[in-house]
Amino acid sequence: MGVRRILTSPVEHHAVLHVAEELAAQGLCNTRLAPVDSRGDVNLHWLEQELQAAQAEGVSVLVSLMHGNNEIGNLLPIEEVGALCKKYGAWFHSDMVQTLAHFPVDFSQLPLDFSACSAHKFHGPKGIGFAYVKANSGLHPFIHGGSQERGHRSGTENVIGIVGMAKAFKLAHERMEADHQHMRALKAHAIERLTTALPGVAFNGASGDLDNSLYTVVNISLPEGDPNRGMLTFALDIKGFCVSGGSACSSGSSKGSHVLEAIGSGDGLRLSFSRYNTSDEVDALVDALKTV
Amino acid sequence: MGVRRILTSPVEHHAVLHVAEELAAQGLCNTRLAPVDSRGDVNLHWLEQELQAAQAEGVSVLVSLMHGNNEIGNLLPIEEVGALCKKYGAWFHSDMVQTLAHFPVDFSQLPLDFSACSAHKFHGPKGIGFAYVKANSGLHPFIHGGSQERGHRSGTENVIGIVGMAKAFKLAHERMEADHQHMRALKAHAIERLTTALPGVAFNGASGDLDNSLYTVVNISLPEGDPNRGMLTFALDIKGFCVSGGSACSSGSSKGSHVLEAIGSGDGLRLSFSRYNTSDEVDALVDALKTV
Repeated sequence: MGVRRILTSPVEHHAVLHVAEELAAQGLCNTRLAPVDSRGDVNLHWLEQELQAAQAEGVSVLVSLMHGNNEIGNLLPIEEVGALCKKYGAWFHSDMVQTLAHFPVDFSQLPLDFSACSAHKFHGPKGIGFAYVKANSGLHPFIHGGSQERGHRSGTENVIGIVGMAKAFKLAHERMEADHQHMRALKAHAIERLTTALPGVAFNGASGDLDNSLYTVVNISLPEGDPNRGMLTFALDIKGFCVSGGSACSSGSSKGSHVLEAIGSGDGLRLSFSRYNTSDEVDALVDALKTV
Repeated sequence: MGVRRILTSPVEHHAVLHVAEELAAQGLCNTRLAPVDSRGDVNLHWLEQELQAAQAEGVSVLVSLMHGNNEIGNLLPIEEVGALCKKYGAWFHSDMVQTLAHFPVDFSQLPLDFSACSAHKFHGPKGIGFAYVKANSGLHPFIHGGSQERGHRSGTENVIGIVGMAKAFKLAHERMEADHQHMRALKAHAIERLTTALPGVAFNGASGDLDNSLYTVVNISLPEGDPNRGMLTFALDIKGFCVSGGSACSSGSSKGSHVLEAIGSGDGLRLSFSRYNTSDEVDALVDALKTV
């Protein structure tokens, strides 16, 4: 494809940042990070200026910005970003792992070149996903060998995973509206109970904004100076709650979340909702938090 | 790792040849193919000369030679090749997809740096396998992103596949001796019946040599001039037998087998045996062949 510059952001999934770093280390392209505000939203004015400048310089650009942030729930105005990329001749990749099968998505209508999806985010099997690659994108195969998947990804296919993913994807679409309403209600309940139970609690990123964030994620911090700040994940873990400080990929790492660092928040606690969670579980969690 | 030259052979799995080609196209290393005799055995005298020359030139070498050939059943003298690689300071990779879980293998005793295995070759799930990478091999990760699998291969793991592979691997080892005897008997029966039923039939590669080839594979050709030569795969397919002309990866391709081409054989018919095949099935296949 010949990409020489990647425009992304400091709140992007760390896998994207890691790959960008590696490409830079190999001298293949450089990376520029968009400024984000304290809520974690990407500055689109900066993006347009960068796209314009790159076009003037004749530098080929890939924009990689995720549709829904896995840690703080921010939603990207994907049509607007896609339109900018199109206007200035840049490729546009959007990690849609958090939003596919959760929001209605029609690839034929989205101004996207590439996207990625993970089955376990919609109750499909772990270790399988799919990539959306627009026809004639000029993408070179990454894994060589046999000629499977039209030469794009060699190797005997994970048949069980593919079938399981397709079924889960179909089920998720059939019940999307009902699931959405259920989880939105859980999140609304959680926001209300957390606000009452933990005075001074902060909702990181867009995650406290019910109408403009992923309905699957809430990310909270206790006020500065609270003695339990930074201990919540640990305390809840002991009580049997599966919560997270950052993303699953960096679990076990002693480093804090790069996303929260980028928006100037301290340690955060990420609560995720699925179709299988109940209002009682939210209550139990908030009660447990109160006793910490 | 800094490999500058790959030594492999023309009867190697085409995925290895394809990757070697791609690396050459990217200017990363060059490839030299060992001469093979009409049976498909690699010339180890050539290999030693090449290793010696590369060491004298100061060129870092990776030898990639498969343990058991998937099409013609030849077995590599793996200890001998490993010893040569060690002697001349070359890395040694051996594709053991055909032999792992079929023959007793103890990686701690083999002079190997890298190996690869596929679960579906021993009745495990499709789309999962494992790589053996010797400690301190200096191998760089290929897929970047999260820090899964000690940073060697990022991405959420295929948990179902891994568990299924481990179980199938254990079962294959528990019943290895019995399965070996069963399939060896099937192969002996097939060789005997084919020889009688099809006068002039040739066994390609080492596949007709019961004691010195994979017990899972027989590869035959009809004599030159036989009107059915080249039609056997097609004819058996119509009769409901799953047989193959080459490797599964190139199924649907109109090109013949590169392995048979390298040893000067014409079109071949590859018959494979599993623990689930029976002597009656072999008889039915030979009867079907007679009527073609």
